[in-house]
Amino acid sequence: MKPLIHEDFLLQSEAARSLYHDYAKALPIIDYHCHLDPQAIAEDRRFRSITELWLGGDHYKWRALRTFGVEERYITGDATDEEKFAKWSGVLPYTVGNPLYHWSALELKTYFGVEEQLHPGNWRDIYEHCNRLLAGEGFSARGLIGRSGVQWICTTDDPADDLRYHKRIAALENFGTGVTPTFRPDKALQIEAPDFADYVAVLEQAAGCRIDSYAAMERVLLERVAYFASHGCMISDHAFTYVPYAEANEAELEAIFAKRLGGGCLTRQEADQYTTALFLALGRKYASLGWAMQLHIGALRNPNSRRFRELGPDTGFDIIGDGSFAQPLSRLLDGLERSGELPKTILYTLNAVHNDVLAAMAGSFQEGGIKGKVQFGSGWWYNDQKDGMLKQLTSLSNLGLLSCFVGMLTDSRSFLSYTRHEYFRRILCNLLGGWVESGEAPRDLPLLGGIVQDICHHNAERYFGLPVGG
Amino acid sequence: MKPLIHEDFLLQSEAARSLYHDYAKALPIIDYHCHLDPQAIAEDRRFRSITELWLGGDHYKWRALRTFGVEERYITGDATDEEKFAKWSGVLPYTVGNPLYHWSALELKTYFGVEEQLHPGNWRDIYEHCNRLLAGEGFSARGLIGRSGVQWICTTDDPADDLRYHKRIAALENFGTGVTPTFRPDKALQIEAPDFADYVAVLEQAAGCRIDSYAAMERVLLERVAYFASHGCMISDHAFTYVPYAEANEAELEAIFAKRLGGGCLTRQEADQYTTALFLALGRKYASLGWAMQLHIGALRNPNSRRFRELGPDTGFDIIGDGSFAQPLSRLLDGLERSGELPKTILYTLNAVHNDVLAAMAGSFQEGGIKGKVQFGSGWWYNDQKDGMLKQLTSLSNLGLLSCFVGMLTDSRSFLSYTRHEYFRRILCNLLGGWVESGEAPRDLPLLGGIVQDICHHNAERYFGLPVGG
Amino acid sequence: MKPLIHEDFLLQSEAARSLYHDYAKALPIIDYHCHLDPQAIAEDRRFRSITELWLGGDHYKWRALRTFGVEERYITGDATDEEKFAKWSGVLPYTVGNPLYHWSALELKTYFGVEEQLHPGNWRDIYEHCNRLLAGEGFSARGLIGRSGVQWICTTDDPADDLRYHKRIAALENFGTGVTPTFRPDKALQIEAPDFADYVAVLEQAAGCRIDSYAAMERVLLERVAYFASHGCMISDHAFTYVPYAEANEAELEAIFAKRLGGGCLTRQEADQYTTALFLALGRKYASLGWAMQLHIGALRNPNSRRFRELGPDTGFDIIGDGSFAQPLSRLLDGLERSGELPKTILYTLNAVHNDVLAAMAGSFQEGGIKGKVQFGSGWWYNDQKDGMLKQLTSLSNLGLLSCFVGMLTDSRSFLSYTRHEYFRRILCNLLGGWVESGEAPRDLPLLGGIVQDICHHNAERYFGLPVGG
Repeated sequence: MKPLIHEDFLLQSEAARSLYHDYAKALPIIDYHCHLDPQAIAEDRRFRSITELWLGGDHYKWRALRTFGVEERYITGDATDEEKFAKWSGVLPYTVGNPLYHWSALELKTYFGVEEQLHPGNWRDIYEHCNRLLAGEGFSARGLIGRSGVQWICTTDDPADDLRYHKRIAALENFGTGVTPTFRPDKALQIEAPDFADYVAVLEQAAGCRIDSYAAMERVLLERVAYFASHGCMISDHAFTYVPYAEANEAELEAIFAKRLGGGCLTRQEADQYTTALFLALGRKYASLGWAMQLHIGALRNPNSRRFRELGPDTGFDIIGDGSFAQPLSRLLDGLERSGELPKTILYTLNAVHNDVLAAMAGSFQEGGIKGKVQFGSGWWYNDQKDGMLKQLTSLSNLGLLSCFVGMLTDSRSFLSYTRHEYFRRILCNLLGGWVESGEAPRDLPLLGGIVQDICHHNAERYFGLPVGG
Repeated sequence: MKPLIHEDFLLQSEAARSLYHDYAKALPIIDYHCHLDPQAIAEDRRFRSITELWLGGDHYKWRALRTFGVEERYITGDATDEEKFAKWSGVLPYTVGNPLYHWSALELKTYFGVEEQLHPGNWRDIYEHCNRLLAGEGFSARGLIGRSGVQWICTTDDPADDLRYHKRIAALENFGTGVTPTFRPDKALQIEAPDFADYVAVLEQAAGCRIDSYAAMERVLLERVAYFASHGCMISDHAFTYVPYAEANEAELEAIFAKRLGGGCLTRQEADQYTTALFLALGRKYASLGWAMQLHIGALRNPNSRRFRELGPDTGFDIIGDGSFAQPLSRLLDGLERSGELPKTILYTLNAVHNDVLAAMAGSFQEGGIKGKVQFGSGWWYNDQKDGMLKQLTSLSNLGLLSCFVGMLTDSRSFLSYTRHEYFRRILCNLLGGWVESGEAPRDLPLLGGIVQDICHHNAERYFGLPVGG
Repeated sequence: MKPLIHEDFLLQSEAARSLYHDYAKALPIIDYHCHLDPQAIAEDRRFRSITELWLGGDHYKWRALRTFGVEERYITGDATDEEKFAKWSGVLPYTVGNPLYHWSALELKTYFGVEEQLHPGNWRDIYEHCNRLLAGEGFSARGLIGRSGVQWICTTDDPADDLRYHKRIAALENFGTGVTPTFRPDKALQIEAPDFADYVAVLEQAAGCRIDSYAAMERVLLERVAYFASHGCMISDHAFTYVPYAEANEAELEAIFAKRLGGGCLTRQEADQYTTALFLALGRKYASLGWAMQLHIGALRNPNSRRFRELGPDTGFDIIGDGSFAQPLSRLLDGLERSGELPKTILYTLNAVHNDVLAAMAGSFQEGGIKGKVQFGSGWWYNDQKDGMLKQLTSLSNLGLLSCFVGMLTDSRSFLSYTRHEYFRRILCNLLGGWVESGEAPRDLPLLGGIVQDICHHNAERYFGLPVGG
C-alpha cells in the first residue's frame, strides 16, 4: 500500500503541486499563537517516551480514545506508557476521516520517518523505534523546534506571569527561534469565576500592590501590558464564551468591583459592564503599543462536571457554543474604533457557522495604511482540519481578501504540531491550484505563488512587526 | 436514456463501488427509528393502489405538489387515486435536485421494477403496472418488510399505548423481522400544550390510577417505561422544539403541576422546570435499563395555522427552528452524567447548522466501555438527503469518529422507505471511496469495508443490544 | 495566458456547456430588484470616466481597497479619477478568490472588450481605452441597459417618492426596457430611528395630509401603495435587521405612535407591536393587488460609527447579523395566511446559515394555483458570489423545488452589474450539468434546459405578471 503521506499528499492538481513545492514548502514557520510551555523550551525538556511526547497532553487524541470506548486508565490514568501506546494503535485506524488520522501520520513521518500506518500489529516496533530516536540528538524541545524550521513562537501567558522563562530563552545563544509571550488576561476579565478573588491576590503579588478597586485593577493590568511589551510581547489574546457589551460609568464600575470582591454575586448586566470597560481599556493600550489583539469566541468550557472534577480543565471536554454575537462584537470594536484606538485585531470563532459573520465584521473595521488590519483568523480548534480550514479560507475569500491573511498557527501544547503548518499549506495550495484547474483563477503562478508566500509567511512577519527573515 | 438508478448509482470511484458491492449492499437493515403503524404490520395491511401506498402519507411529496401550485384536492383531498397519481407524474420531473427525485426512482425501481422516469406521458402504464403488482403476493405490509431485508424495526409509541399490536407481532410465526416499540413521552413533557389535561386523562386510563401530582406523573411514566421494557423496548425518543434547562425542588414541581392542571398558564421558567425534572427522572430510568435515548431537536410544528386547522399535524407544514441550545443541552446531559446516570444517547438536529455543536457535544460525554456511547445522529427529516447526509457524516468525521456511528434509519411512515438505507449506503461508500481516490484515506479496503459494515449494521446491532444476526 | 473570461467560463462539463449555450445565454434579463437611480435612466446619464462608472458607487470594491490598506482618499476621497483607477489596478489582482475578481473581469470584457487582467502594468492603457468608449455611443445609462438585453427593471423607491422619473421613463419612445418602481416603506416601519419624525413630515408632504395617528400612518401608506400600483409597481420590499412579532390592539398602537411622535423612547415590545401591525396591514394590501412582497432579513447597518459619521450609509460598512428569526417570521407569515391574505412572498437572508430555515419556511406557506408562491430568494449581497449562489441553489433544491425559482437579480447601483445574470446562469448551468455528469440527474437536456429557462426568465415573467416576452 502506498504511504498515506508522500510528496504530493493532498495536492490534486499540477498547479497545486507547483504552488506547494515551488513557493510554500521551504518558508520558515511563524507560530504566532500556541500553548507551548516556555519552561520546557528554556530547559530544553527531553521526553521519556513517544507516549509522553505524543499522547501526553493531546486532548484531541483523548477524545478519540474515549469515543472508541477505551477506559480512562489508558488515556490519562495510570497505565504504562507502553499500554497507552498499544491502546492508541488500536484506535488510530478507526479515526480515518478525523484530522487525527492525517496529523498522526504526518507527525510520525516527519519526526520519526515512520511511513506505515500505526496499527495493533506494528505498534511495538514503532514504539521502540520512536523511543530510540527520542533518546538521541534533536528530539529535545528546542531540538524539535529547530528541526521544524520555526522562525518565531508566541506562547500564551497570564498577566501575573513574571516571564522568567522567556528571559532565559531570550538569553540563549545558539537558538535561532524567537520566542515571545502573549498577554492573555482572561482571569482578570472573568469577574464571575468562583476563584476571581484568588486570582486578584495572585495578580496583586505579581504587581506588588493592592488591587482594591476597579481603577487599581485597570491600572495594574495596563502596567502588566507594559511589562509584557518590555519582554518582546506584541500580541494579546482574549477568550469570550459569549461576547458582552454593556456601558457603565466609573462609579458603577467601582460598585461592581467592590460587590464582587465582597463576595457578592453579580447580575449578567454588571458582569458585562465590568468586562466591557476593562476590555476597552486594554484595547486602547494595545493600540497605543501597536499590538495585535486576538479574540477567541465561542468555547463552552467544562460542561461535563464529573470529568471536570476528576480531570480538571483542558482535558478534552469543552464544547462549541452557538450563541449569536454580531451585535455586541460590533459594539466592542466600534467602542475602540470611534476614537481611532482599535488595535490590529484577529477574530476567531469556534463555531464555523459564524465564519461569514466574522469575515464581514473584519471588513467593516479596516483602515488605510495597514494591510488586513482586522483579520478573520484561521480555523480554530475543532475547525483546525481540512474541511474547517477550507471553510475559513473560502469564507474569507468570498467576503474579504484571502491575499491579506496572516495564515496558520498551531494553537497547540505539543512540539510535534508544526506539521499542521505543512497540512495548512498543502490545503491552501490545493485550493488555489483547484481554482486554476477549474478556470476560476488565471494560470498566473507568480501571482498566486506570491499570495501563497504572503499567507504562509510574509503577511504575518509584517503584521506582527517581526524582524524580517527572523 | 440510461436509467437513473443502476448498479453503480452515486458510486463515482472504483473504491466506492467496491465498498458498496462487496461490503455494504447485502447487510440486513436495522431501522431503529421509524413511524410505521404497528397495527398495519400486525394486520399485514394491503394497499388498494400505488397512490395509497406511495402518496397516501408522504408529506414530502405533498410539499412538492403544493410548491408546484397543485390544488389541495389532488394532494390530500377527494380527487381519485388516479387523478392524484396523474398530478404527481406531472410534478415529479420538476423535483430534480430534490431528494424526492431519487427516492421516487429508487422506490419504483426496487419494489416495482420500473426503470423509466415517471412523467405525464407514461403515468397510466406505470399506475396500472404497480397496481397489478400490489394485488399480488409480497406487497402487503409484512411482504414489503420481508422483501426489504429488514432485521429489526423500532416503531414510535406513546406511553399510554397498550402495545397490543406489538404483542400480536411478537406472537407471529413466519415473520423474521423484530418489531419493538419506542417510548416517546412528548405529550407528558409538553405541559404547556392546550390539551395537556386531556392527555393526563388518557395516561391515567392506561396506568389505571390517578395522576394528581407531579410525583404521580413521574411514577406513572417510570412504570410505563418498565411496561415498555417488558415488551422489548430498548429505546426512548424525545422531541424538543427548543431545549430547556431549569432546576426546581419538589415543592416547586408540585405547585407547577397543580397550577397547570387547575387550568393555569405557566411561565416559561415554570414549564422548563417541569420538563427538566421529568426528563432527568426518565433519563435515569433509561440508564438503569440500558436503553438508548434519542433527542430530536429543533422542529417548529404547525406554523401555518389555517392549514393546521384544515389538515391537522404532520401534513407537511413544519419548519426548521434556529434557536441556540448548546448551553441548556449540555446541562441536561450533565444533569444525568454527574451521577453516572447518562444513558446511551443519540442527538439529532433538524437544523444542519447545529451539526458541529452536536458532534462536539457527543464527544464530551463519552464513557469507557461503550463504543460511541453518545452519538451524533443521522441527517434528520429535511437533512435526510444527499447533501444533508454528507454534512452529517463530514461533521461527525471531523469532530468525532465516523467509525463508531450507528448509522441510518428511515424515520418514515411508508413501507417503501427502506430504499433510503440503500441511498445512505451508496452515499457513505462514495464518501469513503472519494477519500481513497484523493489520497486522504489509504487504499485499505478491508479496513474501510469493515468500517462501512460497522456503520451499516454491526454498530447498531451492538449498540441497541439486538440478538446478533437477527 | 488564456483570458479568464471565455465562452466556457465556469462550465465544467459537456452538459453544463449545452445548458448554458443552448438554453440560458440568449434569454432577456428580468432584473426585479435593483438600486439603479431612475433619474439616471430618465436623463440617460453619461459617465465622465470608467472610474465614475465602475468604482464610483461600488461599496464591494471600496471594502477590498480598505482591506488592502489603501487610504480613503483613493476610495471615496478627493483623489483624481486616474489616481483611483491606478490604486484599484494594484488591488484587483489580489482580490483573487473574491467575487470582485470575476465580476470585474466580466464587466471589463462584456462592456469594454478588455480581455487582459487589469494590473499596475496596464492600467493606463485600459483606463484610456475605456474612457474613449465611454465618450462614444452606447455607454449612457440607457445605452448600457439596452446592450445588456434587459427586459424589465424594478428600482427601489420610498413611499414618499412622487415617481416623476418613472413617469418620464414610461413616456419614453425607443426604449425597450420596462422600468417600474418597488415600494420600500422601511422608514415608515422603523419607528425607533432617530429621524422618524422627520420622515413622517416627508411622508405628510407627499401624501398632502397630516399623519398624527397610527391610523393615519396606515391609511397614508396604503394610499401610497395604490399610487405606486397606478405607476406599474407590482413588488414591495422590506428590510428587517431582525424579525419582530408582537400583537397589539388599536388603542395600544395609537398610544405607541403618539408616544414616539411626542419624542418618547419606545420599549422593544412597543416598537415590535407597531412594526408588526403596520407590516400586516401592508401585506394584506399587497395580497389584494397581486403584488409580490420581498423580505430582506439580517443586515446590521452602520456598525462603524466613525465611518458612518464621515461617509454616511451604504458605503461598505454593513455587517451580517446572526440572530434567530424562524419563530417570529413564521408568525408574521401566518398572520397574513390565516385569513388567506398572504401575498406572493420572497424571503432573502444575508446570513447563509439561515438558508435552510428560509427554504423550509417557504415550503410551508405555498398555495394551490401559484407556482412557487413563497420563494426562497437568491443569494443576497455578501452571498451574491459563486459559493453563496451554490449554497442558495442547493438549499432550495434539497428543501424545495429549484424548478419553481424566480432566479437572479442584481441588487446593484451599477449599470455594469447585468453581467451578474450571466455569472448566475453559468453557475446554475454548471450545477445542473454536474448532476448529469455524476448521474444524479438524467441526461435529459430538454427537461433540464426547460428548467434552466424557467429559472432564468419564464418563472419571473409569470410570477410578477410581466407582459410575456417584454
